[in-house]
Amino acid sequence: MRTAEENSDIFNKFYQVRERTLKIIEPLSVEDMIIQCGNDASPIRWHLAHTTWFFEKFLLKKFVPDYTVFDRSFDYLFNSYYETVGSYFPKALRGTQSRPGVERILEYRMRVENAISSHIDVLQGEEALSIMELGINHEEQHQELMFMDIKYNFFNNPTFPSYVEAKPLPTSKPGKMNYIHHDAGLFAVGHSDSGFSFDNETPVHNVWLNGFEIGDRLVTNGEYLEFIEDGGYQNPVYWLSDGIEASRKNNWKAPLYWVEEENGWKNFTLSGLQDINMDDPVSHVSFYEADAYARWAGKRLPREEEWEVAFSGTEKLYHGNFMDSWYLRPLPLAEKDKGSMQVLGDLWEWTQSPYVPYPGSSPLLGSVGEYNHKFMANQMVLRGGSCVTPADHIRLTYRNFFQPDKRWEFSGIRLAGDI
Amino acid sequence: MRTAEENSDIFNKFYQVRERTLKIIEPLSVEDMIIQCGNDASPIRWHLAHTTWFFEKFLLKKFVPDYTVFDRSFDYLFNSYYETVGSYFPKALRGTQSRPGVERILEYRMRVENAISSHIDVLQGEEALSIMELGINHEEQHQELMFMDIKYNFFNNPTFPSYVEAKPLPTSKPGKMNYIHHDAGLFAVGHSDSGFSFDNETPVHNVWLNGFEIGDRLVTNGEYLEFIEDGGYQNPVYWLSDGIEASRKNNWKAPLYWVEEENGWKNFTLSGLQDINMDDPVSHVSFYEADAYARWAGKRLPREEEWEVAFSGTEKLYHGNFMDSWYLRPLPLAEKDKGSMQVLGDLWEWTQSPYVPYPGSSPLLGSVGEYNHKFMANQMVLRGGSCVTPADHIRLTYRNFFQPDKRWEFSGIRLAGDI
Amino acid sequence: MRTAEENSDIFNKFYQVRERTLKIIEPLSVEDMIIQCGNDASPIRWHLAHTTWFFEKFLLKKFVPDYTVFDRSFDYLFNSYYETVGSYFPKALRGTQSRPGVERILEYRMRVENAISSHIDVLQGEEALSIMELGINHEEQHQELMFMDIKYNFFNNPTFPSYVEAKPLPTSKPGKMNYIHHDAGLFAVGHSDSGFSFDNETPVHNVWLNGFEIGDRLVTNGEYLEFIEDGGYQNPVYWLSDGIEASRKNNWKAPLYWVEEENGWKNFTLSGLQDINMDDPVSHVSFYEADAYARWAGKRLPREEEWEVAFSGTEKLYHGNFMDSWYLRPLPLAEKDKGSMQVLGDLWEWTQSPYVPYPGSSPLLGSVGEYNHKFMANQMVLRGGSCVTPADHIRLTYRNFFQPDKRWEFSGIRLAGDI
Amino acid sequence: MRTAEENSDIFNKFYQVRERTLKIIEPLSVEDMIIQCGNDASPIRWHLAHTTWFFEKFLLKKFVPDYTVFDRSFDYLFNSYYETVGSYFPKALRGTQSRPGVERILEYRMRVENAISSHIDVLQGEEALSIMELGINHEEQHQELMFMDIKYNFFNNPTFPSYVEAKPLPTSKPGKMNYIHHDAGLFAVGHSDSGFSFDNETPVHNVWLNGFEIGDRLVTNGEYLEFIEDGGYQNPVYWLSDGIEASRKNNWKAPLYWVEEENGWKNFTLSGLQDINMDDPVSHVSFYEADAYARWAGKRLPREEEWEVAFSGTEKLYHGNFMDSWYLRPLPLAEKDKGSMQVLGDLWEWTQSPYVPYPGSSPLLGSVGEYNHKFMANQMVLRGGSCVTPADHIRLTYRNFFQPDKRWEFSGIRLAGDI
Repeated sequence: MRTAEENSDIFNKFYQVRERTLKIIEPLSVEDMIIQCGNDASPIRWHLAHTTWFFEKFLLKKFVPDYTVFDRSFDYLFNSYYETVGSYFPKALRGTQSRPGVERILEYRMRVENAISSHIDVLQGEEALSIMELGINHEEQHQELMFMDIKYNFFNNPTFPSYVEAKPLPTSKPGKMNYIHHDAGLFAVGHSDSGFSFDNETPVHNVWLNGFEIGDRLVTNGEYLEFIEDGGYQNPVYWLSDGIEASRKNNWKAPLYWVEEENGWKNFTLSGLQDINMDDPVSHVSFYEADAYARWAGKRLPREEEWEVAFSGTEKLYHGNFMDSWYLRPLPLAEKDKGSMQVLGDLWEWTQSPYVPYPGSSPLLGSVGEYNHKFMANQMVLRGGSCVTPADHIRLTYRNFFQPDKRWEFSGIRLAGDI
Repeated sequence: MRTAEENSDIFNKFYQVRERTLKIIEPLSVEDMIIQCGNDASPIRWHLAHTTWFFEKFLLKKFVPDYTVFDRSFDYLFNSYYETVGSYFPKALRGTQSRPGVERILEYRMRVENAISSHIDVLQGEEALSIMELGINHEEQHQELMFMDIKYNFFNNPTFPSYVEAKPLPTSKPGKMNYIHHDAGLFAVGHSDSGFSFDNETPVHNVWLNGFEIGDRLVTNGEYLEFIEDGGYQNPVYWLSDGIEASRKNNWKAPLYWVEEENGWKNFTLSGLQDINMDDPVSHVSFYEADAYARWAGKRLPREEEWEVAFSGTEKLYHGNFMDSWYLRPLPLAEKDKGSMQVLGDLWEWTQSPYVPYPGSSPLLGSVGEYNHKFMANQMVLRGGSCVTPADHIRLTYRNFFQPDKRWEFSGIRLAGDI
Repeated sequence: MRTAEENSDIFNKFYQVRERTLKIIEPLSVEDMIIQCGNDASPIRWHLAHTTWFFEKFLLKKFVPDYTVFDRSFDYLFNSYYETVGSYFPKALRGTQSRPGVERILEYRMRVENAISSHIDVLQGEEALSIMELGINHEEQHQELMFMDIKYNFFNNPTFPSYVEAKPLPTSKPGKMNYIHHDAGLFAVGHSDSGFSFDNETPVHNVWLNGFEIGDRLVTNGEYLEFIEDGGYQNPVYWLSDGIEASRKNNWKAPLYWVEEENGWKNFTLSGLQDINMDDPVSHVSFYEADAYARWAGKRLPREEEWEVAFSGTEKLYHGNFMDSWYLRPLPLAEKDKGSMQVLGDLWEWTQSPYVPYPGSSPLLGSVGEYNHKFMANQMVLRGGSCVTPADHIRLTYRNFFQPDKRWEFSGIRLAGDI
Repeated sequence: MRTAEENSDIFNKFYQVRERTLKIIEPLSVEDMIIQCGNDASPIRWHLAHTTWFFEKFLLKKFVPDYTVFDRSFDYLFNSYYETVGSYFPKALRGTQSRPGVERILEYRMRVENAISSHIDVLQGEEALSIMELGINHEEQHQELMFMDIKYNFFNNPTFPSYVEAKPLPTSKPGKMNYIHHDAGLFAVGHSDSGFSFDNETPVHNVWLNGFEIGDRLVTNGEYLEFIEDGGYQNPVYWLSDGIEASRKNNWKAPLYWVEEENGWKNFTLSGLQDINMDDPVSHVSFYEADAYARWAGKRLPREEEWEVAFSGTEKLYHGNFMDSWYLRPLPLAEKDKGSMQVLGDLWEWTQSPYVPYPGSSPLLGSVGEYNHKFMANQMVLRGGSCVTPADHIRLTYRNFFQPDKRWEFSGIRLAGDI
């Protein structure tokens, strides 16, 4: 059971998170919130409505007696993929919708927030609070998605718009990569403390790990450029079969946001097209590229359990660059930062682990189960959060996941090896 | 040579047409101007910019010394398909662009209009005036496209928005269809008077026509429904091979905007979803459907020359319903309208004529030639204009054209036969 | 009414044509008769069965009392596209079928031939003889298709097999192209004599033609190479919009069977890969390429009626190279051939005329009507026959047709112009 | 080091396996060996050549001095996917090739076999023998593929041909499914004895397993039919998201070879279309279907390590139905067979384990590494072999793998659960 204080914390966080969503859209025009580039992204307008619909559908309709929905059509329009609560508008067509417009969606947001405020009393039960907490974390996930989608949309505009003014970066160098050694043994993995976690992080379970080593920082643009210049993209010996096929089909020659101009590579950021910084951790690579790079480098990607075990109990070393810093880009690891290992924040780190249920989890797929378990196929786990993840959203046990060919998430590479 | 008065008429028409474009977008939200449903339509935002770019590119840059373009990126962004003046942004992706936004495009419109006003003196030459006239007619064509695209976009929104309030319709019946007989002979076809025409309407040339008959009104929804209910869509005996293939692939069961609900067919209009009016001329059918319907009815579609010859010199009978009436939908032919044959206005009428160059035309495809001639393959000619065509834009010799499977234009069916 | 002699001619021709089909497959292995490269071609095995099914379905089943079909499954397997007589196996999958095998299909052929021989008496009626004649002409068309498909299949094999040994060619040069002038006037076009014709060649009808000129020979490889070397494939000014799109999508850089090797262009023929002969008429070009070439050359393609009128009554000039010569490739026009204008034989000649019904034809689409009329959309007319057309199959009024992007037929270019 | 006897065993097995390949094609016509239905299957002709090329390329060319290849074009034509030894002909087009024909490929087989026989002396080295052994196992895998492809090809022929005469089946019932319980613990998994194994089965490594239960037989057609009749295919609550998408896209309503006829389900087998036997283990289901079925049944699929550990040391219970029995179909488990658990043979059993490298394996992807490791993405592990697996090919540690939507392999379902 939560304490009264914990309950009140949840409501406080609710308001903070909802406000942060509005802060995110501040630099955007109405036009920016309508478009959708490709089938992975969603219009910002849709994120604003869907995160609100989640609270209306699963919280207000369920726990507030006689609650009247804001607009009956929203159930169809703003359900993402919950098969068990009804049909939903096709994802690929979200960017073809102009109505309801942004203003009406902001109204919807306010209306739902007000309804929650007015019914705090009936929302104090254990189950309601759990949904509330889930809804908050859900909206935080969509905040990250919003940054991913804004960046991708802006990149697909030939004028390369800027979302935020660039801030000066640290100038000292990241230094040589070292490897931390870890002995073999039986370890407990998964989320155990009393705080919030998603159901894919539990239950805690044993796993045997052979001895391994893991890098003490992320791979940099400069290091990745060597792979490119060594013909890494063309040499099948480094690639998984599906990987080189994806690479050829999509004509990959560099990470997603690298743009080759006459005088060298540029890097598209949320501050527009920038000179590339070779000390930045390399970002926006697919699993296939990360895997190929690791093989080229004579290493491999870490297993998700290795990653979790290696960094467990070393919280002082995380020192993350999250959304909260409003850099909205990964930062180079400066020498003075030593002590940090870029574990949490900056970039999600690809692991070599397919996204599967933890032993002992009960993958009921209905409703709440649809949140995570039904996606447990054909995806790879990423760990650690990124520069567009809210700081209070991330945990060491957090399991993010994307298909191995996806590149619009803020993903990076950490190396590992057998010892 | 044009008279001074004719010159001044051109400039007057320029301002009228430009203003009409603004009138068209008045009921739209910013959101409505961004979206693009399908590859045939374009965002309204894009129409606003492209029609302006046409004047800037072909008029101002050519005839105004030291003219400075508004924004250099627009040449790439708002060129539609003129291969000979540079590359252009892919059509299918126009709906993924939020920048430049609507406000900046309206600025662009004003800036170009002002530039034209400020340089009236240098734009009085024969060639400049011809381009001016072409640009005006070009923008009128895009006005029709805007209505087509707005209707299509709104139809693709599950909430079925309305663009304009519905007006009451005439209630009397269209009456039985009669056929006008026309004797065989050698006829001159094509545009001959001194007014404006597109290059695809000339030169005047001879054509031999066998005797034929042609309907004195358009086919109605009620008549078309009989075809549907007789299994016309399923019976290959009425269809061209490509037609039935398109019909199966797209799962056609009725005209584009017909929506089957529990208690019967509805018709989506620019005033939202309406009860279907059986006396309306049937609209938004493809050439394939028009052709199949005609064969089912024991008739055929007219050749474009038959159409032109049959209605030549009967101007008093046209009595059209154009964009200017602001009904923005075809009207049923009321008995009291008799004397009209729905020739001009209401709906474009499919002919059985493929769109090819007239004998004696010189199809240079560069620049201006790109306007029409390069599209002379795999399209069919339509005649007569529609309820979203500006009244002063249409002529009896006007040749519109669409691929035979297109349905989002305001197209209808007139029957003909051999005698 | 046919005379007894004419009747007997039909039966004689039946046996000759059937025998010729067997001659065509003589150099093929069983394997060669199974494969299908692409959706336009069909397996040879299928041609063998389908041409036989035509006689069984439309002749034997209709006119021979108590006729027992050879195999009931063949009705589904070997119907090509006759919607009105039942469903049919998908064309694109014909190459996935190994049963019935070649031997059984040859048995089928013999069985049907024997059945016809045994029932000559009941097949002497006007209608039966008409079907017989249609079936013979149908099989002749498939003989041409067999050569087209064999060539295409062999070309898609990296070992470039040869079907027939190459024969020596004439060595003298074709000489300069001259243009025959033709005055304007009203002309009768279409098939009129008592011999066989397809329904798409009738009725005879009037057509007005402006004065025109037409080339006295086909365009050669050498002339076409100039177009290529002048950047003709890259310059949009010569191309129809659909044409340059097809050209880019399919990466066209030369006619279909041209292969660029280190020391220049080779030409794939039914005798394998050969040095290109610059005096050969250029072959295996699409309508789009023919049209672009003509525009580059400052000319245009002829209308089908111009072609027919220009060469009407000049039979002595045809002098064709048909399948019967067993060269199975177009021949260069030698000087000593002067007097010939390569009109019939050698290559089908693209016209600028879309394939539409002749005025006055009654396009009933059922059964027999399915033979031609239902394909009258999105195709262009070709005239004149080719080096793989049987000599006794062709006429001046014969209308062949293909989609404008097709290149596996034996097609060439004749130029025309306005005067 | 192998003993002389072991060496000689390898050569003996070589001849046996090569001969078995010829036995497999005995009932086939030349036509049957050419076709390819879909992109997963390959023509039998290609299997015959490719398995031979493997010996020529990796054994003869490497170990026999001055070896002359049979045909230089075969390196391109019959390489499957070994990127590091050169380019290869596109897999999807294999069925479009008629040359080299079957006879020439059989010649190729003999020539390579003779070359090996003639050079036994130089092939006695450790490395050569390893390649030899790999080549033998490789050909055995292709033998299974040949049965999969023959079945699939025949199924795609509307006449449903039969490959082998059906044999009578046992009639007694399989009885109730029981679950074997297994305690939690740390277990060694992977191939350890001195016999042959693929590199994906090693190294032996520790794995912690929670306590689990596992079914003592495969799921039957009758049990699976209950899932179908309960609406299992339509209810998203049982399905992974990618699974229900695949199911909808491919219109799955039952296992691959089930055919619904008026009087119920039939089952297509290598003996043609048969009445379905409800006691047969259900076969030809995708991972997605197996996973959905398990969830519907309140169970889950086993992890591959659970499967291996559960059945380790119980060899007496395997009692398999392999290719050798020439039933070529899974057999129902008769009561009198009790003691068997259908572990090896009958059907490959889907596990819930993605196909990833074992800890400690060194995934060099070049040449030999291409054999297995480069496919370690987006596939699921299957265990146990099938009725078309050679008996001497299978092991308890054997890891087969297919993409989760594949169904043409002989796959079945074994249930497991947590305890």
